Amino acid sequence: MKEIKLSLFGFGNVGKAVSRVLLEKGVFFREKYGVEFKVVSIADTSGVVWLPEGIDLREALIIRENFGKLSAWTNDYEVYNFTPDEAVREIDADVVIDVTNDRNAWRWHLAALREGKGVITSNKPPLAFHYAELTKEAERRDVPYLFEATVMAGTPVIGLLRENLLGDAVERIDAVLNATTTFILSRMEVGLNFEDALREAQALGIAERDPSGDILGIDAGYKATILHCVAFSPVTFDEVRVRGIAEVTPDEVRRARAKGKTVRLVATVERGEVTVEPKEVPLESPLAVGSHENAAVIKTDLLGELLIKGAGAGLKETASGVVSDIIKASLRL
Amino acid sequence: MKEIKLSLFGFGNVGKAVSRVLLEKGVFFREKYGVEFKVVSIADTSGVVWLPEGIDLREALIIRENFGKLSAWTNDYEVYNFTPDEAVREIDADVVIDVTNDRNAWRWHLAALREGKGVITSNKPPLAFHYAELTKEAERRDVPYLFEATVMAGTPVIGLLRENLLGDAVERIDAVLNATTTFILSRMEVGLNFEDALREAQALGIAERDPSGDILGIDAGYKATILHCVAFSPVTFDEVRVRGIAEVTPDEVRRARAKGKTVRLVATVERGEVTVEPKEVPLESPLAVGSHENAAVIKTDLLGELLIKGAGAGLKETASGVVSDIIKASLRL
Repeated sequence: MKEIKLSLFGFGNVGKAVSRVLLEKGVFFREKYGVEFKVVSIADTSGVVWLPEGIDLREALIIRENFGKLSAWTNDYEVYNFTPDEAVREIDADVVIDVTNDRNAWRWHLAALREGKGVITSNKPPLAFHYAELTKEAERRDVPYLFEATVMAGTPVIGLLRENLLGDAVERIDAVLNATTTFILSRMEVGLNFEDALREAQALGIAERDPSGDILGIDAGYKATILHCVAFSPVTFDEVRVRGIAEVTPDEVRRARAKGKTVRLVATVERGEVTVEPKEVPLESPLAVGSHENAAVIKTDLLGELLIKGAGAGLKETASGVVSDIIKASLRL
Repeated sequence: MKEIKLSLFGFGNVGKAVSRVLLEKGVFFREKYGVEFKVVSIADTSGVVWLPEGIDLREALIIRENFGKLSAWTNDYEVYNFTPDEAVREIDADVVIDVTNDRNAWRWHLAALREGKGVITSNKPPLAFHYAELTKEAERRDVPYLFEATVMAGTPVIGLLRENLLGDAVERIDAVLNATTTFILSRMEVGLNFEDALREAQALGIAERDPSGDILGIDAGYKATILHCVAFSPVTFDEVRVRGIAEVTPDEVRRARAKGKTVRLVATVERGEVTVEPKEVPLESPLAVGSHENAAVIKTDLLGELLIKGAGAGLKETASGVVSDIIKASLRL
């Protein structure tokens, strides 16, 4: 049995979902892969719980659910006030997992890689701005740097592009990568105006209180940037043309529908050119997805068109990508 | 530059397509992966051309096109009368590639693995009858045994199941895995009877002269068997329930259409249960594929439903799968 020490950064919804999967499927992973995971640290914004012998995830989840923060857990565990940078240096771990929203996380990703630790992330900005630097450092240290959950949650579009289709040259990717905008556009199709559709999405927890990342196309832009990096060559989000859905009118949506089409926020990725914008797509197109789905049509020289479609959001669904990467990293270490 | 010696078995349509890709994309592979491929032998039914210094693929393709068999190539090369078994033992190669239709190829797959050679195959029966034995031997010798092109041509459903979704438990796969039957059923939808639709498929080169493998569901059954082996556990084709499309009547097809459905040969794969049979699927279902496509809907515990859809046949498309495996094997060696 191989024991892999994990250091978890972020204990919000995704972090909790990852912990739940590790807890509930531990036996399955031991039997199928011969791997045993030991979470040696968990960090949230209140502090870092660190226990080299391994943290009881069941307890950690209970504390977090009941007190809202890990730092409440002082009767059993020491809570440290490390910065992430200090934490990745101090804490002995094989793999660092970033499920935070820290925009500057690339710094401590780099620090972790330099310490010879593998890094797994569902956090997009580090890749959307520092892909080349991060993947090069991982290659130099020969440690895994994996990020399946950054695009289309656990739907393995990254694995498909990075580790399959190796003989093909990708020519173009068209994709719907943001579920919140699809929800809003779908509601506008049945008569709501943009503001009401957005409010409904917020009430249902589909859109965040500050919805700008989704609405302005930034989230889809990050993901499209990452797809370009993987399929072609490193670029940064600054080079991407992004137009969100804030200016889409109910009239435009209805006119599309009358033509047998539907408006979706579509990312188009070609060599050296990444665009995200609202587009009319035929109802029979694979890009005419429902609210919970993402889809990517990948065009290559040998295979022609390949469609991958699946969950694009959700907690279990995102945990699927993170945990798949954890196992993938473990099998390589 | 890493040099990888390839021993190619089968120089029919797929073998030629693979050779063409290796020839035309050699520079791309060298630059992208730092790998140089040297084909040291090519076998067709007429004999084995073997040249340790590497065969000129351009010449080999010309000979095959003009004379129909490799044994005509006696002015430049020695042609050997090895059995495949002898060939995999005699010929020094890193990877053996099986693009034949040899039903008994599992014997020389095993022999190659025992010699410490990697094996890549687009040939289905070895896997449909001897999966456990072959993959176990490959694991024991720590050499790659790869078979992406056996199911859905180059569409990477095998890579997706074998190397991704590692944290998920697959619950069920529904798939359309045979393009010829889809073509025939589509033609019956527009009024042809089964025999005329089959004749048309044969005239177009979509169905073979002996079409029984497709029509009786055997081809789809082999593929479904392989999917079960990968997603769940080893089974053999003998355990699979298969009903082909030979008894589907134009009337049934028309009645389905009147209900907004279409008949497709559907493979259903659950733990311990593999079925292939004609089924009515709603027109809006991802399984209502067109003639050139295959599709698989994979249901898992964490991710829910994932769809992968793409080419299911074709020469370049099959070569895509074989060549991706060649590169994958090379990166591991």
